[in-house]
Amino acid sequence: MYRTHTCGELRIENSDQNVTLAGWVQKVRNLGAMTFIDIRDRYGITQLVIEEHSSDEVRATAAGLGREYVIQASGKVIPRAAKNPKIPTGEIEVAVDGLKVLNVSQTPPFTIEDNSDGGDELRMKYRFLDLRRNPLKNALILRHRMAHEIRNYLDENSFLEIETPYLIKSTPEGARDFVVPSRMNPGEFYALPQSPQTFKQLLMVAGYDRYFQIVRCFRDEDLRADRQPEFTQIDCEMSFVEREDVLNMFEGLAKRLFKNILGKEFDGNFPRIGWHEAMDKYGSDKPDIRFGMTFNDITEAAQGKGFGVFDSAEYVGAICAEGCAGYTRKQLDELTEFVKRPQVGAKGMVYVRCEADGNYKSSVDKFYGQQDLGKWAAQCGAKAGDLLLILSGPRRKTQTALCELRLEMGNRLGLRSHEKFAPLWVVDFPLLEWDDQTQRFYAMHHPFTSPNPEDIGLFDTDPGKIRANAYDFVVNGVEVGGGSIRIFDAELQAKMFETLGFTHEEAENQFGFLMNAFRFGAPPHGGIAFGFDRWCALFGGADSIRDYIAFPKNNSGRDVMIDSPSNISNAQLEELSLTVKKEEK
Amino acid sequence: MYRTHTCGELRIENSDQNVTLAGWVQKVRNLGAMTFIDIRDRYGITQLVIEEHSSDEVRATAAGLGREYVIQASGKVIPRAAKNPKIPTGEIEVAVDGLKVLNVSQTPPFTIEDNSDGGDELRMKYRFLDLRRNPLKNALILRHRMAHEIRNYLDENSFLEIETPYLIKSTPEGARDFVVPSRMNPGEFYALPQSPQTFKQLLMVAGYDRYFQIVRCFRDEDLRADRQPEFTQIDCEMSFVEREDVLNMFEGLAKRLFKNILGKEFDGNFPRIGWHEAMDKYGSDKPDIRFGMTFNDITEAAQGKGFGVFDSAEYVGAICAEGCAGYTRKQLDELTEFVKRPQVGAKGMVYVRCEADGNYKSSVDKFYGQQDLGKWAAQCGAKAGDLLLILSGPRRKTQTALCELRLEMGNRLGLRSHEKFAPLWVVDFPLLEWDDQTQRFYAMHHPFTSPNPEDIGLFDTDPGKIRANAYDFVVNGVEVGGGSIRIFDAELQAKMFETLGFTHEEAENQFGFLMNAFRFGAPPHGGIAFGFDRWCALFGGADSIRDYIAFPKNNSGRDVMIDSPSNISNAQLEELSLTVKKEEK
Repeated sequence: MYRTHTCGELRIENSDQNVTLAGWVQKVRNLGAMTFIDIRDRYGITQLVIEEHSSDEVRATAAGLGREYVIQASGKVIPRAAKNPKIPTGEIEVAVDGLKVLNVSQTPPFTIEDNSDGGDELRMKYRFLDLRRNPLKNALILRHRMAHEIRNYLDENSFLEIETPYLIKSTPEGARDFVVPSRMNPGEFYALPQSPQTFKQLLMVAGYDRYFQIVRCFRDEDLRADRQPEFTQIDCEMSFVEREDVLNMFEGLAKRLFKNILGKEFDGNFPRIGWHEAMDKYGSDKPDIRFGMTFNDITEAAQGKGFGVFDSAEYVGAICAEGCAGYTRKQLDELTEFVKRPQVGAKGMVYVRCEADGNYKSSVDKFYGQQDLGKWAAQCGAKAGDLLLILSGPRRKTQTALCELRLEMGNRLGLRSHEKFAPLWVVDFPLLEWDDQTQRFYAMHHPFTSPNPEDIGLFDTDPGKIRANAYDFVVNGVEVGGGSIRIFDAELQAKMFETLGFTHEEAENQFGFLMNAFRFGAPPHGGIAFGFDRWCALFGGADSIRDYIAFPKNNSGRDVMIDSPSNISNAQLEELSLTVKKEEK
Repeated sequence: MYRTHTCGELRIENSDQNVTLAGWVQKVRNLGAMTFIDIRDRYGITQLVIEEHSSDEVRATAAGLGREYVIQASGKVIPRAAKNPKIPTGEIEVAVDGLKVLNVSQTPPFTIEDNSDGGDELRMKYRFLDLRRNPLKNALILRHRMAHEIRNYLDENSFLEIETPYLIKSTPEGARDFVVPSRMNPGEFYALPQSPQTFKQLLMVAGYDRYFQIVRCFRDEDLRADRQPEFTQIDCEMSFVEREDVLNMFEGLAKRLFKNILGKEFDGNFPRIGWHEAMDKYGSDKPDIRFGMTFNDITEAAQGKGFGVFDSAEYVGAICAEGCAGYTRKQLDELTEFVKRPQVGAKGMVYVRCEADGNYKSSVDKFYGQQDLGKWAAQCGAKAGDLLLILSGPRRKTQTALCELRLEMGNRLGLRSHEKFAPLWVVDFPLLEWDDQTQRFYAMHHPFTSPNPEDIGLFDTDPGKIRANAYDFVVNGVEVGGGSIRIFDAELQAKMFETLGFTHEEAENQFGFLMNAFRFGAPPHGGIAFGFDRWCALFGGADSIRDYIAFPKNNSGRDVMIDSPSNISNAQLEELSLTVKKEEK
């Protein structure tokens, strides 16, 4: 062993002990008579001191050190003259009597400090150096602790972690698959799993009534910001359960993590909000309920006064920003610009200032009198000093835009602290979504999602109205997980495929083996999958998942550190019976 | 929730309780007045009883049940008249007053019993049914428990589980890669990792001094029996360590598993045997030391008596089979046939019977007198009643054949019980292996394996003699894990690549990013990887890993259940800029 202690371990109680540390040179300060070296490892930083009377050899070695050199230092622990209360080892230093360079280092292309001077591109290329920085280190430690806690909770609750295969079969449903050519079966391909959905359901058929897996999943999508082609899921499934059983079990998991990882406790159940309510109150199926400012439907009150925009709108919705009546023209213009951005998509914004004297000032005073505006204010629960912000247009589209505006106001008013956590369940999703372009229904979750039992009759009359027996776990406006009770009856499954426009052959071809399995005694079952990268980032207080993944890819799906993907040899292509098509110029 | 208890839970103490169970119909016995149903789930089997006075509805439902139907049964727990001491629930039964069919089942193509009547092929196709059988269920439960125990031990020892990417870069060194075409980078490919070797070393450079991961690995090899294209590794790496540190840490892990999973404790350290000693005593680098019968080199004693076969042999080796002097001619002929099989490859076998009266009878009495044979016997520690078995020829080749003979004798003498475990470390492997065909050295482990420090001078004089700072963990003749101290010095690494016949360009091209990383302060480090599937099978007492993997592939790399690999659509190929070459007839 190269060390007796780590660099984060020594305290005043260790004084007078002879110790050996090993780590990286964080900083060298040569004060002439004395040289101070900060030595760093995963556990912390310890100050080494080399004094005037140290041996020539030690002094010479110290003089040759550079940043990020790997060193081994021996000496006696002594109390520090000038304590550093900012670090746990700040009361001591090590008076060095032996110093060895274990490895040299070129000067890193950026500083290894909490706030590095390196740009994104450079830090991705030298990810192994970026990973030395505290923010990334703490992110990966958090991730480890969360995974461990999750496994303990699930193990205590009789879940078995069962590994499912990575080389599976391509299915056209859902996102695009990554495929893997099979050399032994020329012209045939495996696919990498987008999720272990089918396999976990087969495990339920096999009788493994509580399954989980922390598992990599793959999607060959055009990468938006903060999407990764490979990502990690906490994948879970249970048999002989109804919705409440699943929600309670995983609410327990979430509470355990909140408590043991973040030290936060929650009383009672997490709120449960129906999908329609979520859309009507927050304009989102993943509402951020850290703050109120919910939507008020003032359509009725706003119409019939001659303002064509509102009169012709399907929906007029208002939010009340507390204490913002004093917003300047400039601030209001900014908000109008904000909602008119293509990502938000509103045509314009109407405001009403609820002034201190009880009067209302609005951008539509021409059409609405004080009494009209007072009605709106009352409906929104606004009081003197508040500001109403109003959007109008087609119902869902307007609610979605109003959601963005609400979140923006939340940001401006400091209502969205990373320190605060507001979890909830969103339930009663629509089972199916109609797609105008392809003129067919798509499964909002996936084709095995069970409908709400009392809605089954709607398959024949109004499939769009069927509620799914599905649920999402949402925290702070982030969809952390989602799942459903599954269809376990072969007939109902066939009906579902039919509604999705699958011919019998297509369904058989793609899911035949699962439908076949269901004929041999499938139990009632349901489950959930959590986005583990996302959950870690959320707990770490970060908006991006990237630093919660040790070696992420960039937005073109490249790993710039190892320079992958890359060309392969002709011999490899030959073995796989493949030819790469040249692109036409 | 569909149940109040599992089918393995009820005891005599539960008598008089009203319970609800859910599970599969294992067996129905209709005795006219009474009907008994065995209901099964993951946790066990409980007997349900339907009596004469039960409701018509219950009786009708019971009459319609078939094997593997999924049912829900409610009733009162009562003591059984005829106890069944073979199962934990055998003292009670449930007097059913409510019975519901949750799902029907077709008749399974084979019986769901410990010894099934299904053939391999059929059971693979219906894996979800095969997984209902106890041997497979117990295998997967064992696997879960082992993984959980491993994670707890490593977490307690400050290891962090860090996930490394699955979409990496193809390298020609080692086995064949599975590759993944990149749609976004046409003509370029990712590769699936054969192991996270490079990444775990980068994590050491990044300062994460104790890393592990239970991780899937991929090798596109022609599948021999009991090889899988995807397999699971317990991958570990440590910084600031020497060989002893690594061995102690993972000996601790192994002891923990032996104790907590199998209830077996070991005193003191596991034996450590040098590679040369292992080859000379057991003819194998993964010796089965559950029994002795080690090799005796009788070359000197056997030569110069006119027996040409021995006189011309590089090596004459003998093993002593205790108490086997009475082996018949037929038995000895069988053994001779055994060693002459192409898989073993010996030309013939010589035996010496050490008879009860102190005389020796051998197959080479023509050349050797009693005194000669007595010398051999003495050298082998043979006593009256024992049998010497002798092979001769080129040294290593003969030792390998003698190893097979020793294992065969071990089997015949019942010395290789699955209940007995004999772990050891094999150390001091050769660093390099010479390949006659390609006229170059290959790394016996991998190109980052550090040489034994005192052997570094041999690079320039006799590279074949360099010992590696490497180690294998072997149990009962199975290589469970292996690893090494790594090269962390860029210069030594360059020397290694040179010896392996890599040009500077090739080395840069394939490992450049790693060598580059090593220039920024790589710490001394080393690690180990264990074959998790294999370790599970070993602990489960099985020779094959297949039943320790939930969904294995067959020997052609196919998953016959989901019928994968399979064709993909032309649109998919188009998107990937690939063409499949038609095979020539």
